[in-house]
Amino acid sequence: MSDNDFQYLFEPRSIAVVGVSDDAARPGSQAVRALLNNGYAGKIFPVNPKYQQFEGLRCYGSVAEIDEPIDLVVVGVPAAGVLPVLEASVEKHVPFAVVLSGGFRESGPEGIEREQRMLALARNSGMRIIGPNCLGFANIHSNVYAAFGSITREPKLKRGGVSLVTQSGGFGYSLALACSAAQIGFRHVIATGNETDIDTVQLIDALLDDPETRIIVAYIEGTGDGRALLDVGRRAMAAGKPVLLWKGGVTEQGARAAASHTASMTGTYDFYRALFKQTGIVEINEIHEAVDYLKALAGAKYPRGNGVAVMGVSGGSAIVFADAGEPQGLSLCELDPQTQQKLQAVVPNIGAVHNPIDLTAGYFSRNNEEKLATAVQAVLDDPNVQAVCVNLATTGKAGSLVAAEVLARVASAATKPIVVFSSAPTSEIGDALARFDDAKIPVLPSPSRAAKAIAMLARYEQAKHRVAREQAMSSVAAVPLAARIEVSGSALSEIESKKILAAAGIPVTRDVIVSKADGAVYDDLKAPFVVKVVSADIPHKTEVGGVKVGIQTRSELERAIDEVLASARKHVPTARIDGVLVSEMVRGGFELIAGVVNDIVFGPVVVVGAGGIYAELLGDSACRLAPFDERTAREMIDELQCRRIMDGARGGPALDVDAIAAALAALSRFAWENRESVEEIDINPLFALPSGVLAADALIVPRVPGGVQAE
Amino acid sequence: MSDNDFQYLFEPRSIAVVGVSDDAARPGSQAVRALLNNGYAGKIFPVNPKYQQFEGLRCYGSVAEIDEPIDLVVVGVPAAGVLPVLEASVEKHVPFAVVLSGGFRESGPEGIEREQRMLALARNSGMRIIGPNCLGFANIHSNVYAAFGSITREPKLKRGGVSLVTQSGGFGYSLALACSAAQIGFRHVIATGNETDIDTVQLIDALLDDPETRIIVAYIEGTGDGRALLDVGRRAMAAGKPVLLWKGGVTEQGARAAASHTASMTGTYDFYRALFKQTGIVEINEIHEAVDYLKALAGAKYPRGNGVAVMGVSGGSAIVFADAGEPQGLSLCELDPQTQQKLQAVVPNIGAVHNPIDLTAGYFSRNNEEKLATAVQAVLDDPNVQAVCVNLATTGKAGSLVAAEVLARVASAATKPIVVFSSAPTSEIGDALARFDDAKIPVLPSPSRAAKAIAMLARYEQAKHRVAREQAMSSVAAVPLAARIEVSGSALSEIESKKILAAAGIPVTRDVIVSKADGAVYDDLKAPFVVKVVSADIPHKTEVGGVKVGIQTRSELERAIDEVLASARKHVPTARIDGVLVSEMVRGGFELIAGVVNDIVFGPVVVVGAGGIYAELLGDSACRLAPFDERTAREMIDELQCRRIMDGARGGPALDVDAIAAALAALSRFAWENRESVEEIDINPLFALPSGVLAADALIVPRVPGGVQAE
Repeated sequence: MSDNDFQYLFEPRSIAVVGVSDDAARPGSQAVRALLNNGYAGKIFPVNPKYQQFEGLRCYGSVAEIDEPIDLVVVGVPAAGVLPVLEASVEKHVPFAVVLSGGFRESGPEGIEREQRMLALARNSGMRIIGPNCLGFANIHSNVYAAFGSITREPKLKRGGVSLVTQSGGFGYSLALACSAAQIGFRHVIATGNETDIDTVQLIDALLDDPETRIIVAYIEGTGDGRALLDVGRRAMAAGKPVLLWKGGVTEQGARAAASHTASMTGTYDFYRALFKQTGIVEINEIHEAVDYLKALAGAKYPRGNGVAVMGVSGGSAIVFADAGEPQGLSLCELDPQTQQKLQAVVPNIGAVHNPIDLTAGYFSRNNEEKLATAVQAVLDDPNVQAVCVNLATTGKAGSLVAAEVLARVASAATKPIVVFSSAPTSEIGDALARFDDAKIPVLPSPSRAAKAIAMLARYEQAKHRVAREQAMSSVAAVPLAARIEVSGSALSEIESKKILAAAGIPVTRDVIVSKADGAVYDDLKAPFVVKVVSADIPHKTEVGGVKVGIQTRSELERAIDEVLASARKHVPTARIDGVLVSEMVRGGFELIAGVVNDIVFGPVVVVGAGGIYAELLGDSACRLAPFDERTAREMIDELQCRRIMDGARGGPALDVDAIAAALAALSRFAWENRESVEEIDINPLFALPSGVLAADALIVPRVPGGVQAE
Repeated sequence: MSDNDFQYLFEPRSIAVVGVSDDAARPGSQAVRALLNNGYAGKIFPVNPKYQQFEGLRCYGSVAEIDEPIDLVVVGVPAAGVLPVLEASVEKHVPFAVVLSGGFRESGPEGIEREQRMLALARNSGMRIIGPNCLGFANIHSNVYAAFGSITREPKLKRGGVSLVTQSGGFGYSLALACSAAQIGFRHVIATGNETDIDTVQLIDALLDDPETRIIVAYIEGTGDGRALLDVGRRAMAAGKPVLLWKGGVTEQGARAAASHTASMTGTYDFYRALFKQTGIVEINEIHEAVDYLKALAGAKYPRGNGVAVMGVSGGSAIVFADAGEPQGLSLCELDPQTQQKLQAVVPNIGAVHNPIDLTAGYFSRNNEEKLATAVQAVLDDPNVQAVCVNLATTGKAGSLVAAEVLARVASAATKPIVVFSSAPTSEIGDALARFDDAKIPVLPSPSRAAKAIAMLARYEQAKHRVAREQAMSSVAAVPLAARIEVSGSALSEIESKKILAAAGIPVTRDVIVSKADGAVYDDLKAPFVVKVVSADIPHKTEVGGVKVGIQTRSELERAIDEVLASARKHVPTARIDGVLVSEMVRGGFELIAGVVNDIVFGPVVVVGAGGIYAELLGDSACRLAPFDERTAREMIDELQCRRIMDGARGGPALDVDAIAAALAALSRFAWENRESVEEIDINPLFALPSGVLAADALIVPRVPGGVQAE
C-alpha cells in the first residue's frame, strides 16, 4: 500500500498563489484566473506585496500574512525568490507546494545548488513539492488549477476517469488534448518537471488510491528507481487500474535529447521493456495509440486468448485486420459449426459464415436489427472466440445507429470485448458514436488499429496472471532461498565462480584443476577436454592463448597444459596463476549466454541470449528483473529468435527448455539474494543440451562496496 | 508510355445507366441520383423497360433504344442480365462499361463462367470493362458518378489532386473518407472489384497521363503481373507522381482472407517490398499513415539526406521525434557554428541553439515574428540540415497563426521540406491550419508521425535516383549481356550448374571430376579438399553420404572418393553417377546463400541471405527483381542482419562486399537473360572472402516448357 497521502495536494481546501501580477502571462496570474474561471470552490490567496487586490480577491503581501490555513502553495516567482517563499510556507505548516518557476538544475551550477536546497528543505520539513520547472497540475473534477500555460487554456478537458502524469508538460499535454478531442475525460493532469521531490512513480502510486482515477497515462524520460516503478506497476495491476506508459528517450538520439532537456537519468530501454512485461504496464509510443488504448481499456473487458472473430460489410477491412493482428499474436479463429449454423439463419446467402464473417453490403439497417443481434450473440457465444471486431467501415448515419443500438444491447451482458471499426465522418454518425461511448464500446478509425487494441487487451489479461504469480515470489518467504555469498575485491576466478553458481543450482561442467602437465587427470574425466588457464588476473583467457579445446589423447592433454601456462605467463607476466582447469568438453549442445547486470536503477536483471557471433550482431537476447520463476524464464526463452532451434531445427534433437528455464530462475534468485555484493555475472557459454544445461564458463564480478557502479 | 486511352471512361460525354428502379437502394438508381445531385454536365440515359421516366429523365427500354452516342454504360442489373446488356453496348460501339453487379467468380462455378464470357466479350470487342462486383468510380472534378454505395453518399469528397484506385471498395473508400476529413482533395476514386478486364495497374498507368492527378493511392490484394507494376511504378517516378500503395493480405491470415474475398492471386509480400524499393512506390499500411504521407508529399519538397533540425517549444516533443526518427534513419544533425551564432541572436538565453533547438515556451507570438523568421531561415540555410520539424505542440490560436504566417513566408523560397507538429484542437487553430495548407506545409498530430513523414520523403528522394539508374538498365542494350543457356529436363548437376554460372561471371571453386579413387588430382589442387558425388539424380548429396570435407592427405582423399561413391550407390542404386567432384575447400570466408526464384507474377527475383542455421531461422535475406546493377546489389547486402560481419566483426578480416555485389548483379543479369528457361537457381554456399567470392556449390533448375510452375 502507498505511504503517500496526497489528499490535500489533489483536493486542497485553500490555495496560496505567490507571484500574481497584472502581467497576464505570469504563471501565478494564469493559475489564479484558471481557478476563478473554472469555479474552484476553495479559498484562493493571491500573494504580491505590490497589490491590495487581484481579480477581485484580497491580495496578500506574503505567505506569512495569510491568516488562514493553507493546503497548497503555488509558486510562480523568479527562481531567486522561490526558496524564501517555500521557507515561509513551511513556517505556516503548508503541506504541499507546486513550484512552477524555472531556473533550477536545467540552468547551470547556481540552479543546481538552488534545487539541492529545495530538496533539503522538503526532506527536513516534510512539506512535499511538485516541480520546479513544471506546468503544474489540475484536478479536472474539482477545478483545482495549480498550473499555467496550456493546462489552463481553453478548451477545458472533459471530466472522466483518466489521470495523466508527465515529466514533459508540453508534450504530455499534447497527449491530453488528443484524448480530449476523442471524448476521453480526465481526472488529474500533473506535469512534474524536474521532480526534485515528488516523482512520477510516487504520483502513480497515489493515483492508485484515488477512487475517481480508473486509468493512468504517464510520459517519463527516466526514473531513478526502477524497483519502485516495478512495485507500483504490480500494485496497479492488482488494483485493476491499467497504466499506460510512454518512455521518451529510447534511442541513442532520444537519450541525448533527454540529457539536454531535463538532465534526468535515462535508464536502459530493454530494462524498461522487461519491467513493462513483468507488471502489465502498457507501453505506448504514439499519441493516437494512447487514444485507442484508453478507449479500449474503458470497457474493462479482456480477451482470454488470441482468437478473434471479424464480422462486417467490408472484406478488405477484414484482410487489413488479419494483416495487423497476426504479428500481434491474434488469429482469426475457426468458428464452431454450431455458430456457423446460427449465422446461416441470419446472414444472406451471398455472405460468408466463416471467419471473417461477411454480412454483405447494406446489412446494418433497421430491417436487420434482430438478425444482427442474433449474429453478434452467436459469435460471442462461440467458445473459440475471445474478442469480436465489427467492421462498419463506411456505413452511414442510419446503419451506424442501428449497429450501435444492437451492439450496446448485446455487449451489456457480454464478458468478451467488442471493438468497432468505422471510417464514417464523425459529423455524420455522432448519434451512433455517443451510443457506442455510453456502452464503452471502442470505435477505432482503422481495422489495423482495432487489431492492435484487441491485442493490447489480450496482453493485459495475460499479464494479470503473470503479475499475481511474480508478486507472490517477491515476498521473500515464498522464494526458495539461494546461496548468499561473501564476495569482495576483483573478479572471481572461473573455478570460484562456477562453484558458487553450482551451489546456487546452476549445473556446471566437470572440471579438475592441475598445476602442471599432468596426464593423471586423463583418467578421471572423459575426453574430449577443454583446458583453460586459471587466474583471477586474466579475465579474457582466449586472447592470451590461455584456452585449448577438442583435446583427445593423453599426450595432447599434457602438451596443452604446458602450452596454455607458457602462453599466459608470456602475455601477462604479472598474473597470479592458480593452475590449469581441465574440463570435459560439452558436445551437441546449443550455446547460450546468460548473465546478470546489477543495474543502478533496476537492480539485478537477468539476461539470456544466443551465443556466437550472431547473438552479438543481432542482439538476440531477453531480460527480466530478478527474481522470477520458471514460467517467466520460459517466456524469456520464448522471446529469443533462436527459440526454434531448441525444438530441434534441421533434424537436431530438441533441447531441454525446462532445464534452461530452471537455470535462469535459479540465477535470478541468486542475483536477487546477493544484490548487495554481486555486480555482474557472465555465464558464457551456457550449453543447452537435449537433457539439461551446463555452464561451461562463468565469471562473477563482485560489487565494490560504496564504489562507483560500472557503466 | 501508356497505351491506354481512358479519356472517355474518365470524362464521358454521355452515360447510360442500366438497372434503375423506384427502389432507391438499387445500384443503378443510386448512380443516376448521384449524377443528378452532383451536377454531372453530360447526358444521362436511364434504362429500364418498365419506366417511361426516371428522376425526370427519359427512361429507355434498352441500350439499343438509345439513339445517341454513349461513352459509358453503367450496369447494375442482376448477374444473369449483365452479359446481354454488354452485348447490346458492343453493338452500339460503347467504348467503356462499369459493371457494378455482383454474382461472378466470387459466387461459384456459374459466376466463374459468366465472368469468363465477360472477359472474352471485352477482348473480342475492344470494349473496356471495370468490375464486375465493384462500387464503381467517380471523377470528383467532373461530377461523374458511375458508382453506388458509399462513393455516392454525403459528404462529397473535396476536389484535389489525389486519385484513388482500390480493389476493395468498402475499405478503399474508408481511406478516401479519412483523407477527406483531413482536407485532402480528390480527382478520381475507382473501386475495381474483380478486375476481369481493367486492373489496378492499368488504371495507375492511365492516371499518370491525367494532368489533374498529382498523387495516386492504391489498395491492392494482389496483381497477376508484377512486371507491369514494376514498369508503372518506375514510370510514376519518372513522371514525378508519387504512388502510395497498400498491399492487403500480407500475412498468412491476410492471404487467406484475400482468397475468400476476391479470389484474386496474392503474390509474395517480400517480392512486393522489393518492387516498392525498386520503384519508389511508397508502401502504406495504416489509414492515418496515408493521410500523413499525402499531406507531406503535397509539398513536393524532399530532403537530400538524413539530417533533420528540430525546433520548437517542447523538449519532450523533440525527444519523441528523435526516438521515432532514428530507426527510420533520420538523425538530429549537428548545426554549423555559424547557424548557432545566428540563432544565438534570436533565441532567448534560457533556450538552446543546438539541435534540438529550444525556442522556449511562449516563443510563438507576434512580438517574435521576425526573430522566428530569422531562426527558421538560419536553420534552413545550414548545409547539414535537409529538413526541419517545427514543434508547435500545444501552442494556441494566436501563436499558431504567427508560426503559420512566418513558416509560409520562409518556406515559399525554400527547397528543403518543413513539417509541423501541432496538437492544438482543430477548432482553435483553424486559421493557422488553413495558412499551412495553402503553403503546402504538412501539420501532423505527433512528433513521431512528423518524423516518419520526413523519413518517407527522404526515402522517396533516394528512390528517385535509384529508379533512374535501374530504368536505364532495363533497356536491354545497356545491360552487359549474360550467357544465354539451353537447359531442359531435370535439375542440372553441380558441375554443369557451376560451369554455367562461371560463364555468367560468378566465381566458382576450382574442381576436378574423377571417376574413381585417384590420388593424382592431389597434385593439381591445393588441400584441404571437399569431395562430392556428381549425379543429376541426387540433388541432396549430404543426405546420402555423398559429401566429405576437410580432407588433407593423399590417402584420405583416395579413401574419401571410394566412400562417397559407395555410399551414393548404396542409397540411390538407380542414380546415374558421373563421378566424384574434388574441390578446393574454401576457408576463412563467411557463408552466404544466393539464388533466383522465377516467380509466376514477378519473374526472376534474386535472393541473398546469410548461410547456416540462423539464416533459416531468422529469414535473414534480401531480394530484388532482376536485372539490377552493383549499387542495387549493395543495397540488398546492406539490408542483411549479417552485414556487420562483413566489416570484420570480432577481429576477423573485412569481406569483399564489392565482389558479393558484382556476383549478385551478374546473377541477376543471367536470371533475366534466361528467364524463359531457368526456374530456380540455388548457390549454397556462396563464400564471401576477404578478397572475392566463391560459389562452392550450385544448382540450376530448368523451367519445364509449358509446364506447371513450382509452388
